[in-house]
Amino acid sequence: MENFSSKLLQAAVEEFSRLPGIGRKTALRLVLHLLRQDSDTINRFSESVVKLHQNVVYCSRCHNISDRELCEICGSPRRDSSVICVVEDIRDVIAIENTGQYHGLYHVLGGIISPMDGIGPADLNIDSLVYRIGNDKDISEVILALSTTMEGDTTNFYLYRKINPFSIKVSVIARGIAIGDELEYADEVTLGRSIIHRTEYDKSSIR
Amino acid sequence: MENFSSKLLQAAVEEFSRLPGIGRKTALRLVLHLLRQDSDTINRFSESVVKLHQNVVYCSRCHNISDRELCEICGSPRRDSSVICVVEDIRDVIAIENTGQYHGLYHVLGGIISPMDGIGPADLNIDSLVYRIGNDKDISEVILALSTTMEGDTTNFYLYRKINPFSIKVSVIARGIAIGDELEYADEVTLGRSIIHRTEYDKSSIR
Repeated sequence: MENFSSKLLQAAVEEFSRLPGIGRKTALRLVLHLLRQDSDTINRFSESVVKLHQNVVYCSRCHNISDRELCEICGSPRRDSSVICVVEDIRDVIAIENTGQYHGLYHVLGGIISPMDGIGPADLNIDSLVYRIGNDKDISEVILALSTTMEGDTTNFYLYRKINPFSIKVSVIARGIAIGDELEYADEVTLGRSIIHRTEYDKSSIR
Repeated sequence: MENFSSKLLQAAVEEFSRLPGIGRKTALRLVLHLLRQDSDTINRFSESVVKLHQNVVYCSRCHNISDRELCEICGSPRRDSSVICVVEDIRDVIAIENTGQYHGLYHVLGGIISPMDGIGPADLNIDSLVYRIGNDKDISEVILALSTTMEGDTTNFYLYRKINPFSIKVSVIARGIAIGDELEYADEVTLGRSIIHRTEYDKSSIR
């Protein structure tokens, strides 16, 4: 434990060093940076966290983070409401939105099935997904966009069995060699799959 | 700019991404982490910053960060008040304290002389250092512990000329090969100086 000459400084550094990936040296740097700002900046910083925590809601339809009952994506008339993209986390929604390649709706599971971590289907937003599919005749496709891990595969399989009875299209995101990667450094499983699931040559399918 | 589904989330991420070394992805990770905490944790986090900013003071003697007029180091009867270690920044005080090798007092300059950045001697806590040396007969040595850069050297020289008339010992921290470093990777200037300023062999001087 460092020997801080100020208890207030020590308290602030301790709070920051509880954040994920922030060590004590970084925490000190961040706190000393804030200390050099004016009161308005400090209040805005501090209030942004409190306001978010107090007022944030999760979309009643897709469980995405939102400012009101229905999130901006679910509420937008410009989105394609025939497709639902199932993701693990809010961050995945932001990542997919940033690609600019998807214009449908989302469904945030809030995790993936992981027996090792004690997370089963009942802990995830799966019932509400099945409800959406069963009650919205608009929906024609569900895209499963989960991590390409053992847990992701398990969850994909579980969801597939739940969605299959509705006889709509179920797809998974493409797995293969990342764009810009060199083949010799790709892992064997990915490389093997990328050959099995090869797609017909088409100028638009490559960069 | 990312397409956040929540303005509150966006506001908090923007505040965090203004911190030094924190990009937008890291900011989002930190904010989502805080969002998962309970209200008490959030309030404690947020108040730690505001309280520090509102109540922090700088030691009237050494300009170190403090909770009261005289910092814990200046106020401690266990410190050796015959030595003053001159440093650039509060972080340097903490770094030296963490070594556990120094038991004297400090003087925080608040920067170093840097004509390129428009920082001259008048912008630094130099007058108060000269005042301390002139008025405290206890002081027998001043250690200059500034960065080993051009600016640090300039500041060392300026301080030396100011302190010299008081006929007390002025020393600078040792420059040489860092412990654990291999010679072949050391830069030439450091290696050259480490030979010129070699010290007599003594078991206690090496690791």
